[in-house]
Amino acid sequence: IAKEVAKLLEMKAQLGEDEGKHKFVLKTPKGTRDYGPKQMAIRERAFSAIISCFKRHGAEVIDTPVFELKETLTGKYGEDSKLIYDLKDQGGELLSLRYDLTVPFARYLAMNKITNIKRYHIAKVYRRDNPAMTRGRYREFYQCDFDIAGQFDPMIPDAECLKIVHEILSDLQLGDFVIKVNDRRILDGMFAVCGVPDSKFRTICSSVDKLDKVPWEEVRSEMVGEKGLSPEAADHIGEYVQLHGGLELIERLLQDPKLSQNKLAKEGLGDMKLLFEYLTLFGITGKISFDLSLARGLDYYTGVIFEAVLLQQENEHVEEPVSVGSVAGGGRYDGLVGMFDPKGRKVPCVGVSIGIERIFSILEQKLEASEEKIRTTETQVLVASAQKKLLEERLKLISELWDAGIKAEMLYKKNPKLLNQLQYCEDTGIPLVAIVGEQELKDGVVKLRIVATREEVSVRRESLVEEIRIRTSPC
Amino acid sequence: IAKEVAKLLEMKAQLGEDEGKHKFVLKTPKGTRDYGPKQMAIRERAFSAIISCFKRHGAEVIDTPVFELKETLTGKYGEDSKLIYDLKDQGGELLSLRYDLTVPFARYLAMNKITNIKRYHIAKVYRRDNPAMTRGRYREFYQCDFDIAGQFDPMIPDAECLKIVHEILSDLQLGDFVIKVNDRRILDGMFAVCGVPDSKFRTICSSVDKLDKVPWEEVRSEMVGEKGLSPEAADHIGEYVQLHGGLELIERLLQDPKLSQNKLAKEGLGDMKLLFEYLTLFGITGKISFDLSLARGLDYYTGVIFEAVLLQQENEHVEEPVSVGSVAGGGRYDGLVGMFDPKGRKVPCVGVSIGIERIFSILEQKLEASEEKIRTTETQVLVASAQKKLLEERLKLISELWDAGIKAEMLYKKNPKLLNQLQYCEDTGIPLVAIVGEQELKDGVVKLRIVATREEVSVRRESLVEEIRIRTSPC
Repeated sequence: IAKEVAKLLEMKAQLGEDEGKHKFVLKTPKGTRDYGPKQMAIRERAFSAIISCFKRHGAEVIDTPVFELKETLTGKYGEDSKLIYDLKDQGGELLSLRYDLTVPFARYLAMNKITNIKRYHIAKVYRRDNPAMTRGRYREFYQCDFDIAGQFDPMIPDAECLKIVHEILSDLQLGDFVIKVNDRRILDGMFAVCGVPDSKFRTICSSVDKLDKVPWEEVRSEMVGEKGLSPEAADHIGEYVQLHGGLELIERLLQDPKLSQNKLAKEGLGDMKLLFEYLTLFGITGKISFDLSLARGLDYYTGVIFEAVLLQQENEHVEEPVSVGSVAGGGRYDGLVGMFDPKGRKVPCVGVSIGIERIFSILEQKLEASEEKIRTTETQVLVASAQKKLLEERLKLISELWDAGIKAEMLYKKNPKLLNQLQYCEDTGIPLVAIVGEQELKDGVVKLRIVATREEVSVRRESLVEEIRIRTSPC
Repeated sequence: IAKEVAKLLEMKAQLGEDEGKHKFVLKTPKGTRDYGPKQMAIRERAFSAIISCFKRHGAEVIDTPVFELKETLTGKYGEDSKLIYDLKDQGGELLSLRYDLTVPFARYLAMNKITNIKRYHIAKVYRRDNPAMTRGRYREFYQCDFDIAGQFDPMIPDAECLKIVHEILSDLQLGDFVIKVNDRRILDGMFAVCGVPDSKFRTICSSVDKLDKVPWEEVRSEMVGEKGLSPEAADHIGEYVQLHGGLELIERLLQDPKLSQNKLAKEGLGDMKLLFEYLTLFGITGKISFDLSLARGLDYYTGVIFEAVLLQQENEHVEEPVSVGSVAGGGRYDGLVGMFDPKGRKVPCVGVSIGIERIFSILEQKLEASEEKIRTTETQVLVASAQKKLLEERLKLISELWDAGIKAEMLYKKNPKLLNQLQYCEDTGIPLVAIVGEQELKDGVVKLRIVATREEVSVRRESLVEEIRIRTSPC
């Protein structure tokens, strides 16, 4: 049903576009959305878990502009380049919105001649893709990237990237997941021994990349029909790409009579073995699958590639589970920085990108199912009055509280009713009410009401700040 | 000198643009910049102060897309509309990058039929202005907005906005400042009694707005020459706009024989008096100046307007002080939401926007002058080894620490030298080193070195996490 509704809404939106010439349409652009206070609270939770993890691994943070010179993005994304948003030529430079955070990162490294950095970057990226918002696919979406740049010993930074994905997905409690791993060198070696001509490596790689969405038969016919590969080569590839496993599969392929003769494949398999040894030390091989069908769409990968996939959840509370696929991906791209350097100097890089929108969808749905009431403010106390003509006294008191660092609100009315003030606390989850009245002012006290218990205590004005602090401290 | 260098750099950049057709230029787009780890640390500090203040005042947070339908922005910014970035028409909707956060906020309220909210929004906005980066003026820059929407008693939310500006500028310790306040109704009333025809109100208002940058004589000749105002009317305006003061000026103008006859001016002055009473209760009138020359450029204001200006700092440590002007501005815009509502239903709003880039410039310069060493990571401990062949043991230990929530790093080398590992701690400010060695492994201990004192203690492996926590806790 949800899908049908989404389709109808989209059709309606399209109709709206045509009507738009005559009548103003009140909406956000296609494939984008607003975040209200509740969504923001969920988003902040997820970001906080991710940032904690990135900081735990010693990453610095950087930021880059939302747009780049168009030529900075040119020739980096292969077939996906058509999805880049360009800005209108209004005189001056030709600009495009960033498509990911990896290419701007490489541009940043080359421009500042940085050869060694571990950084994270959380920001929105833009793709003129076909949105499927119910499944968390948007045209404007966040990426949370962690990358390690520098010349290091093999597979140590690569293993850390996988550890990070494992930590974040465990921490967010999104249910079961698997991290698929492969290596572009193993893929290229495999293509070579299967008889794919060199010139067709990248386009055949794009076909393999579709295997997570369409069955092998379709991919095969694309290879043979559209891309002119021989049926024998395709069938040969078909045998390899159904393989997945762990160390034992790596060992077996290292003995494979054909693959073991190919220099690239041998290198890739050797490194894959080393990677699995490190992942064993990290204790996370249980969720890692060496998968020969994993190809990744982007052009710039040169070594290890990986992708984390959530497994179908058995959740009784939710009638229609959000169908989500990949929630994180990444890999090694040793050539990208060199494309920007005037002298072609390379900086080896490996990194991971967490696709947070799909994670939001799940967290949002989980929260709705749980009936947990989420607060969207942190206000500790409402400054209220029981009688009329006390606006000045409320303003004086709230100003004292703000200056002491207390999170305080008041109703913006001259003479609000006490009932309305208490109701506001119920609605927004404010735990305390500081009530000023004629008598209290004479006595130099404030009545402090605890909303949950309806208990009221008289607190000397000079002790009020301390009393509020104690009563709202988390422990 | 700095100005000259900036000019030369800009000329060079322009030359670069022409060459760009032949040769790739490695740069960020004009008027934009990257934030490196050090700049980000400063930015985070400023954001943290601002967000704390917004939360102290009970605000929720929202986010909207970076672009809007072009027509959403049309007709909201007056003469500034020419500075809006449009996206290229790639088929589909016509889009523009947001110019501020206020119009998207109003669109959000109308679209979701929200009549009552207090929210903040911190995000980048885009203006095709002439950048002056040494003075913190960019084409991509952050705004930190706090707004109160809803039908409330006069001047209570308005006073809170000014309190917020006062709190933030005091908290950030940017030196002395003044917050200029005026009211669009007072301006319009003044124009009326000076003999400005109704149709010229907005354009004469734009001229007045330039008074903070150019002298009165120039503004006068623009009014008379370009805009066809009578010299008498201009001179009349000239008398009013040099007035600034506090409550006593408001009282005097309430008695002004001409202004007091004008309904709009009278309303504005009455509310201004009320505002000053509330600001007196907040104890902040010392930094507030009622200033008849303040006009604000944007079309959508309808009542109180204000702008915070930093006063020239006497700073001996800095040779060439950053010249900064306005760092915050805002006002009341009661008609904007109604422009989006199909039935024109109004939602009164008042809000403030903190212009953070100029504040960054000052904080950056202050930090450089202070020689304070700023850390760009939070790493608590480096996992190191004194002998060779201990990579596996380092990986095992660091994995234990990460899983226990300790922020830990290691060098990505199989056999790093101890000296290099210690040097890394010195360079990045990591306070502790956990050293694994053959003997320690046998004894079930880890050697913990305190970088600052060079002291070394032997810690049982099972107590290591607790020991690191204690030694790196802030108190």
